[in-house]
Amino acid sequence: MWKSGVTLARALRPRSAPRLGSKASSRASKPAAACHLLWSSETQFSQAGQPKDYALPNASWSQGMLNLYNEFVEKSKDGTWKRIPSYRHSLDHIPDSVKLEGEKVQKDTRLFLRNLDEEGLGFEYVMFLNPSEKRMVTVYQPGPYLEGHPGFTHGGSTAAMIDSTIGSCAIFVAGRVMTANLSIDFKNPIPLGSVVLVDSKVDRMEGRKVFLSCQVWSADGQTLHAEATALFIQLASLTRR
Amino acid sequence: MWKSGVTLARALRPRSAPRLGSKASSRASKPAAACHLLWSSETQFSQAGQPKDYALPNASWSQGMLNLYNEFVEKSKDGTWKRIPSYRHSLDHIPDSVKLEGEKVQKDTRLFLRNLDEEGLGFEYVMFLNPSEKRMVTVYQPGPYLEGHPGFTHGGSTAAMIDSTIGSCAIFVAGRVMTANLSIDFKNPIPLGSVVLVDSKVDRMEGRKVFLSCQVWSADGQTLHAEATALFIQLASLTRR
Repeated sequence: MWKSGVTLARALRPRSAPRLGSKASSRASKPAAACHLLWSSETQFSQAGQPKDYALPNASWSQGMLNLYNEFVEKSKDGTWKRIPSYRHSLDHIPDSVKLEGEKVQKDTRLFLRNLDEEGLGFEYVMFLNPSEKRMVTVYQPGPYLEGHPGFTHGGSTAAMIDSTIGSCAIFVAGRVMTANLSIDFKNPIPLGSVVLVDSKVDRMEGRKVFLSCQVWSADGQTLHAEATALFIQLASLTRR
Repeated sequence: MWKSGVTLARALRPRSAPRLGSKASSRASKPAAACHLLWSSETQFSQAGQPKDYALPNASWSQGMLNLYNEFVEKSKDGTWKRIPSYRHSLDHIPDSVKLEGEKVQKDTRLFLRNLDEEGLGFEYVMFLNPSEKRMVTVYQPGPYLEGHPGFTHGGSTAAMIDSTIGSCAIFVAGRVMTANLSIDFKNPIPLGSVVLVDSKVDRMEGRKVFLSCQVWSADGQTLHAEATALFIQLASLTRR
């Protein structure tokens, strides 16, 4: 569990130079001012009413999950961090301003990480954005339907947690993006039902390329479960208008 | 769709050396983290009766999925390929000979890729093993509940398809293994409801390290959706007996 500000500060400490930094070309990165949040609480929906936001506590959340959630909510009060809502349908996350012509929410599809009906069985999670640090953190509680080796999360579900967090971080900077590369070093298995913090950050941009890195920590900040780097490509025709 | 033996031969052509081989070989040994299961048709079950095998056609399978399945079943008649059964619970895949003391199937957990109740919504798939080539191929039909970008599979679900296939391939060679690294290059998005062939192969072994590579092709062999390399670590106490 996330017990103290000290522990929180430890896991959320300023990160060392990104591993990909050494390969950085001399080309200047895009200025931070060019960055935009693709989906946020300001998102305007064309359909009547707001879809259900799943990034809020429910009865399946453990005390450890609630503790971390509450700490980030507290940190959000001064605007440093910001809770990101989460919906069941992919297109609900996309503001009208970057929707393609004719794009409508398909009610027969579901966002991969929100595809189970019963709370607590799959991915319980909430994302928090730190705009000034270009950083996205997700608090995850992987449920019993994400099993690989008995008692632990499947490598594919760990990859999904990372891809979702790191992709959302890329979206914050570049608008609509697609994954080009994802490389994960798995360090320690993640027990089902535990709470982990996936901490991602944009390292640099080169044109339409967005380079990011990510770490997966146990809730107490003592165990590094995984590290990852990723390259996302900004969709040229879909950059923010 | 998989239309001809020529097309099949094209997608299943001998593969070149993995691009990341040199990088992988220089990688220091690390503790492995994402766990995988040993399953095979020789699995002996201690509980009464066989669990349901999900790697068989059901009403949700498209004609394209059935065509590929039938082609591999045909190729299995001479023993070159072998269909691998697939169950809902992780431990059902593990033969008694490599079970840990006290390991029992937990009925409240589910294998990540078999966690949805309704056929066709999630991962429909069947794996075929080519023992002499140390190769595992999975025919996948990703359903509408695996969405990321509207209309396409989530990067995390693509990673899960790859991890599951490549991990199963590692298991065939090394017994119980854990993922140490997985690196994926995403080339072309995978439409929901399409059929893809995930083709994985053991490239080499160094002690307890198993190096593999993988490609994800469209069913017609015309589109390369993704390429991946992986490093798995054999669990010392659980090597195949």
